[in-house]
Amino acid sequence: MNILVTLNAAYVPPLKVMLKSLFDNCSEKVEVYLMHSDIQKQELERLSAFVEACGHALYPLTVERDMFAEAPVNFYYPPEMYYRLIAHTVLPAHVDRILYLDPDILVLNPIEPLYYTEIDGYYFAAAAHSKPVIDYINRIRLRTESNRYYNSGVLLINVELLRKEVQVQQIFDYIKEHAHELILPDQDVLNGLFWHKIKPLDEHLYNYDARRYGTYFLATKGRVNLDFVMHNTVILHFCGRKKPWHPNYRYRFGILYKHYQKLVQRIENCREYEEATAEVAR
Amino acid sequence: MNILVTLNAAYVPPLKVMLKSLFDNCSEKVEVYLMHSDIQKQELERLSAFVEACGHALYPLTVERDMFAEAPVNFYYPPEMYYRLIAHTVLPAHVDRILYLDPDILVLNPIEPLYYTEIDGYYFAAAAHSKPVIDYINRIRLRTESNRYYNSGVLLINVELLRKEVQVQQIFDYIKEHAHELILPDQDVLNGLFWHKIKPLDEHLYNYDARRYGTYFLATKGRVNLDFVMHNTVILHFCGRKKPWHPNYRYRFGILYKHYQKLVQRIENCREYEEATAEVAR
Repeated sequence: MNILVTLNAAYVPPLKVMLKSLFDNCSEKVEVYLMHSDIQKQELERLSAFVEACGHALYPLTVERDMFAEAPVNFYYPPEMYYRLIAHTVLPAHVDRILYLDPDILVLNPIEPLYYTEIDGYYFAAAAHSKPVIDYINRIRLRTESNRYYNSGVLLINVELLRKEVQVQQIFDYIKEHAHELILPDQDVLNGLFWHKIKPLDEHLYNYDARRYGTYFLATKGRVNLDFVMHNTVILHFCGRKKPWHPNYRYRFGILYKHYQKLVQRIENCREYEEATAEVAR
Repeated sequence: MNILVTLNAAYVPPLKVMLKSLFDNCSEKVEVYLMHSDIQKQELERLSAFVEACGHALYPLTVERDMFAEAPVNFYYPPEMYYRLIAHTVLPAHVDRILYLDPDILVLNPIEPLYYTEIDGYYFAAAAHSKPVIDYINRIRLRTESNRYYNSGVLLINVELLRKEVQVQQIFDYIKEHAHELILPDQDVLNGLFWHKIKPLDEHLYNYDARRYGTYFLATKGRVNLDFVMHNTVILHFCGRKKPWHPNYRYRFGILYKHYQKLVQRIENCREYEEATAEVAR
């Protein structure tokens, strides 16, 4: 199973937590592709030792940051966010599909049904966070004909089809042309450029926004309650600026996040892992 | 490591959750002694298969319910609650110490420091849930000289010393004599009869009352926060009548409980376990 992550060094600790929860909910060997620009060699080797200690494999892919020199970026939106959109141009030839996951995620249930979602003819599969007004505004703003504004944090990518049909220049051109309009940059590009080639996924299952418990509960007349989430939701996504690894995060699911943080810490404290990383450091 | 549980059939599902969390936080083989009166043979065999699937062992010990015919019992307080007090009279001779745990518990961190607490000269080690007024009332009520009212849900038992010094008749006599005064029966007996032979444990570590997050947080000026609990608390105790396995339990830590429930369900769903229990049924 191919998993894609694209991040800068600041996100390595939450990445480990996300990966641990993924590994606990996956019966296959996972090949983790990490597209990055600034993570140091030693940090990569430590991360690789962690992934290997869990029985899986890490493949770092370095990307030139300058590729997105003209794209809008800021403190919250580093250039790495765009990397998922050009993954098909840098992944090895044998990778025909890959699942991109944000690092602010917990996987709660088996990942296979998401990974093996049928995507023939689509470039991506993704979930929209149903907010009718926002969906409408974005439809006008991005001049699409879509009733959905897809979240780009969980993205099943049809690498094979994108390789055939989408040139990286097309993406760069779109970004350049719309630089002043992009609010959530990579997500806007995904929606503006590819809205008609995205297969919609059920957000309750594959991109549950951890802040929206009450909304989901009410909208489904109580069907999507905590038990539903714990037994059905595959992707729990800690959207927004408040993150469960921040001190004093008070929202629901924070304690579950801390549980997985502890499991990561245990792996890192165990002797075999320490030895492996010590070897790396030599 | 010897663990004691005493319960009726209704508590088998939460018992499994407690045990799973214990097994995940214990590096030794666990021998689980189950004192009971009404759990059916097939149920016991299924429970045994579960414990064995986790790599540990279950030893059921049947107790005659009539032993406590004259003791106060009701719907919330079945006779099984007294069994922990007479465990030293029924456990096999090689058991010199045992840790009693209520089934409404999650073990969050390694259990060894609790299990190997030094208890020379004490009958028990237990934590009081510091509530000065309640402690005072109980001191008057039970005519003790103790400033602490110990919670009997987590009880490290010095089986060897009790065998030498405490006759079961002594306990029966106390219960009979005080039948009309006992409010939380087994806990009152523990405190009324043995208060001077109990080694106090730190409740933040070894008997954290899941309802009292705010109290602990304020009383420790924020030291005992969620991070403290997740990294230090060994025993998280869901005291009181609202339990995390009830529908719509809304308190903190409920989601963590559901996580362990799911891990239990996964063990029960896996083929090896199904085969083992099918064999038991034949």
